[in-house]
Amino acid sequence: MTASSPAGARPPGPARTTRLGQNQYGKAETRLVRVVRDGATHHIRDLNVSVALSGAMDAVHYSGDNSAVLTTDTTKNTVYAFAKEHGVASPEAFAVHLARHFVGSAPSIERARIRMEEYAWERIAAPSAEPGGPGTAPAPAPASDDKRHSFARTGRETRTTEVTFDGTAWQVISGLKDLVVMNTTDSEFWGFAKDPYTTLKETRDRILATEVTARWRHDWTGDAQDAPDWDDSWARARAELLAAFAGTYSLSLQQTLYAMGARVIEQLPDVAEIRLSLPNKHHFLVDLEPFGLKNDNEVYFAADRPYGLIEGTVLREGAEAAIAVTD
Amino acid sequence: MTASSPAGARPPGPARTTRLGQNQYGKAETRLVRVVRDGATHHIRDLNVSVALSGAMDAVHYSGDNSAVLTTDTTKNTVYAFAKEHGVASPEAFAVHLARHFVGSAPSIERARIRMEEYAWERIAAPSAEPGGPGTAPAPAPASDDKRHSFARTGRETRTTEVTFDGTAWQVISGLKDLVVMNTTDSEFWGFAKDPYTTLKETRDRILATEVTARWRHDWTGDAQDAPDWDDSWARARAELLAAFAGTYSLSLQQTLYAMGARVIEQLPDVAEIRLSLPNKHHFLVDLEPFGLKNDNEVYFAADRPYGLIEGTVLREGAEAAIAVTD
Amino acid sequence: MTASSPAGARPPGPARTTRLGQNQYGKAETRLVRVVRDGATHHIRDLNVSVALSGAMDAVHYSGDNSAVLTTDTTKNTVYAFAKEHGVASPEAFAVHLARHFVGSAPSIERARIRMEEYAWERIAAPSAEPGGPGTAPAPAPASDDKRHSFARTGRETRTTEVTFDGTAWQVISGLKDLVVMNTTDSEFWGFAKDPYTTLKETRDRILATEVTARWRHDWTGDAQDAPDWDDSWARARAELLAAFAGTYSLSLQQTLYAMGARVIEQLPDVAEIRLSLPNKHHFLVDLEPFGLKNDNEVYFAADRPYGLIEGTVLREGAEAAIAVTD
Amino acid sequence: MTASSPAGARPPGPARTTRLGQNQYGKAETRLVRVVRDGATHHIRDLNVSVALSGAMDAVHYSGDNSAVLTTDTTKNTVYAFAKEHGVASPEAFAVHLARHFVGSAPSIERARIRMEEYAWERIAAPSAEPGGPGTAPAPAPASDDKRHSFARTGRETRTTEVTFDGTAWQVISGLKDLVVMNTTDSEFWGFAKDPYTTLKETRDRILATEVTARWRHDWTGDAQDAPDWDDSWARARAELLAAFAGTYSLSLQQTLYAMGARVIEQLPDVAEIRLSLPNKHHFLVDLEPFGLKNDNEVYFAADRPYGLIEGTVLREGAEAAIAVTD
Repeated sequence: MTASSPAGARPPGPARTTRLGQNQYGKAETRLVRVVRDGATHHIRDLNVSVALSGAMDAVHYSGDNSAVLTTDTTKNTVYAFAKEHGVASPEAFAVHLARHFVGSAPSIERARIRMEEYAWERIAAPSAEPGGPGTAPAPAPASDDKRHSFARTGRETRTTEVTFDGTAWQVISGLKDLVVMNTTDSEFWGFAKDPYTTLKETRDRILATEVTARWRHDWTGDAQDAPDWDDSWARARAELLAAFAGTYSLSLQQTLYAMGARVIEQLPDVAEIRLSLPNKHHFLVDLEPFGLKNDNEVYFAADRPYGLIEGTVLREGAEAAIAVTD
Repeated sequence: MTASSPAGARPPGPARTTRLGQNQYGKAETRLVRVVRDGATHHIRDLNVSVALSGAMDAVHYSGDNSAVLTTDTTKNTVYAFAKEHGVASPEAFAVHLARHFVGSAPSIERARIRMEEYAWERIAAPSAEPGGPGTAPAPAPASDDKRHSFARTGRETRTTEVTFDGTAWQVISGLKDLVVMNTTDSEFWGFAKDPYTTLKETRDRILATEVTARWRHDWTGDAQDAPDWDDSWARARAELLAAFAGTYSLSLQQTLYAMGARVIEQLPDVAEIRLSLPNKHHFLVDLEPFGLKNDNEVYFAADRPYGLIEGTVLREGAEAAIAVTD
Repeated sequence: MTASSPAGARPPGPARTTRLGQNQYGKAETRLVRVVRDGATHHIRDLNVSVALSGAMDAVHYSGDNSAVLTTDTTKNTVYAFAKEHGVASPEAFAVHLARHFVGSAPSIERARIRMEEYAWERIAAPSAEPGGPGTAPAPAPASDDKRHSFARTGRETRTTEVTFDGTAWQVISGLKDLVVMNTTDSEFWGFAKDPYTTLKETRDRILATEVTARWRHDWTGDAQDAPDWDDSWARARAELLAAFAGTYSLSLQQTLYAMGARVIEQLPDVAEIRLSLPNKHHFLVDLEPFGLKNDNEVYFAADRPYGLIEGTVLREGAEAAIAVTD
Repeated sequence: MTASSPAGARPPGPARTTRLGQNQYGKAETRLVRVVRDGATHHIRDLNVSVALSGAMDAVHYSGDNSAVLTTDTTKNTVYAFAKEHGVASPEAFAVHLARHFVGSAPSIERARIRMEEYAWERIAAPSAEPGGPGTAPAPAPASDDKRHSFARTGRETRTTEVTFDGTAWQVISGLKDLVVMNTTDSEFWGFAKDPYTTLKETRDRILATEVTARWRHDWTGDAQDAPDWDDSWARARAELLAAFAGTYSLSLQQTLYAMGARVIEQLPDVAEIRLSLPNKHHFLVDLEPFGLKNDNEVYFAADRPYGLIEGTVLREGAEAAIAVTD
């Protein structure tokens, strides 16, 4: 066997000791900004798109025969062309377009998985009227309302999407990451197991802070008519996660995790499953007694590492787990 | 000379070939979260504090004699103790407290520079009423309005402060960084100089995007009665920066930079000087012609590197430049 | 159902709409430096340890009952105590100690997964003799060979380990990440599939650069006598990966991936499976013709994003895939 | 005044309240890989180049008149073209070429500052001979010694250069960053000043670890014949820094800083000044007593934040300080 022969299939033979397992390829992190001009009012979508394709790819691995390979450069081009042709109604809808296209775009491509991150922007508020103010005089083309094409990154959490299609079945997962939240009270931690290495003291009032990563799977079978309003659905899920975090009197971060997941499933009928990853961003009470001061839950050290890491899946009764456990 | 003799001064002698220049030391990046409990309503300040002290420090450098050294651990302790004792009315006010304290806290300490980053949080909106909804039942201590102690990081720009005091003169610089803004039109770039290495095409309509770092210096002499309302002043400066960015029809990023700086000075009477650093976050129009599509300023590639970097200082007429050019 | 009731089990009932799926928890990123003092010669291990435990954890999720929870703080303490008690012979051996301990440390703990990153250091070479040189005079405790306790981070790739134990079966995965490699020739790319979105030109000579992430699974059943010399095994695997990358005349990155994986399996008899993730770090030839210059594969732009991403598993014939596809 | 008038100079008048201060612009972070093909043996330089130009730039700031602006895109092109035309003998030599070119390239350009980072690579060692081994068969163009064009990033410290030229005077600063070093003994810390906020205990044996950033200025006046061998000079400075760190019995990090700086100046006759920034990467001894274990300086927690930060300049006797204090 010569793994690097320039063309031809993998030769059979007694010396064969290895074989190819799961594999995929594509262009990762294609940065796309899509502008829609509605007269003088502009709308934007700011995305980071990653494509992963798989299928009949033995030859390229065994011998470098690229005839089955739709290049990663082509997948990038397709992202940009589709953004023009189809627009970006939502990350989910755009990912569905792309996934449907890639499967079968070459005979070898049997499965496509599209991941997207979306960054949020807000319109810059109209400046307070400062007629004649220097530095902002609108020339040479005065606009009555400049802010209609001016935006600031909100910097808040990143919206995520992962759509997988194998020619038959769809899996649409929506999600978010980088959502940092904190309750400054209504969190306790006590009654835990003790072993010879346990030194932690119980507490009846602590800060509970975390950085939410959540992915929820929709019961969507590919019928365009039945598709949720993806933007509206995502906003609802985000609101429910926040409400559950804020509204849960917490005895453990696991309990909060379950409450957050359960609430999304209960409030969004088309969500079958959700997985959450919640690092416990420890805020330690600083000992001020050496300085003659009492720290009545007012002054905290926000620690970086190590951190507790709580991960779990919540399922609708009757649903099968399908979100991969990747952590 | 033995640079590492455990005690004693630097011995004179013919072999002396080196001497100490500017030096400073302190604890960097002390992470502080300060909670104020106003009944059931909590307020938070989330800071990253860096202290740099300087003064009569020859002995520790020449011979390791630490008798003049207030340890960096002590500066950290002081940050936490002062957060309790004095509170954090604003980053600037807190930094002034610390700087005044450190100068003279040991006979050797002649100058203190305090830098802070502040991260912004917003209250989590009250959950939509879901009486009896699982996952959020308020137990064991029901609260009528849970959100009063629940927060989400806005993730927007970081507020910065730098206060320097040498026992006599104060320098208070407020600022921000990580403020990402974009105009999707009203930006041109043409008429520039050409040399044999110039290939850039002129454009009459481009995206202008940048990540603003700004630092502005206040005319404040240390008199507590004359201090601005630091939070209000900062919010005003931020709003003026945004208004100038959004409201300037731009022929170059330098022009936008000047407009932003000038507007802050014109609108905030106590600001004498401002320095801006504006990376040009290039958004390149994607060529869709190979796919038979016309890209009418709708589909852009957001590039990472390289990027243009435009930096400059704007001064009030009559003011002397005092913000260090550190870039 | 009240998911947040402070104590007690999950109540049964018709309203139950959700249930708990896969879950795990533990302390992540515990930073440990272990020093061994062999007389004046010191040895170090620099690790980042993450523990994930799972088992009978329904109560804590459903009701915040922590009685089954060995705290993440305890897992951190255990890492440090075991580093003292058992030493760190290798990341794999240390992880095996920890995993064996955690399973059963509380009745609820049924499975432990230990991940480690190890950072490499090298000894600082003895300084060239400079008798009487200032700044380095060895006082007050002269050492004949100072470098025996002095180290510099090599900065090279990070070694990784993941050990999973469920009370019966072991899975030991060794690996590395951040290994950046480049061939400046002997790489071609042509003969690929074309579709309407394909614009990429074929090339017979390109730079091939990637940042290797690799994880390989050992056929080790938990019998201490049969354990490989983990350090030696890891060094061998690394060398084979490099040799295969350097020695493969590449017609596609997939071919190089397979060659790298196959070589590790062929040369290390106890490795059953390996998974590789290879971002194609594009180096684009700069067009110098506008300047009257010919770029004969000498001047390249190293791009950040987007990048091709090639991922795949290579299996020993007869082995079952067991490394989770997490990407 | 209309700061945004499309053309024309800043109009004078009573309303002028602001003026332009220090400013500069250019292309930052142009990533360049330069290959030299010496027969089958290749050599590479991997650089990140940032150009900053300044001069007569009032018009572009005041009115958006770009006629004096050599675009940042042109500076990028020049970097690539010069890499071809002049080669990259060393970062310093390449930066000198660029700086000399830019000053005067347009009438408005009066000063150029070129910064570079260089990343280090090592050749991949020849694979152990494995005749017939699959996966590495050298086809179609067998090479007798594949490694001659195969490289791995060492990952060690980054080499830095900063060259400034104003048409008359040169300033060449060489440096490094990201050099992480550790002494596991021969470090004490005691005898420091105490105040009411001091709680730190004295220690006679601690780990001393830091991440060195150093910049040293050469006495070079622009005469090509007198230029040092930049590569050799840099390697020597690095070796002296390491030797001084390893060889200094340390009573404080300030003492070590001074010893490191003094040694470079003493051993490199053409270095006039050096500035060092040394974060104290704290390694805290873990308290193992709760577990019945004695920690005899063997088990440490490597902390992230906060950290001590020690910065200082060492000058040759008689030299003036010229390296900007930017921290």
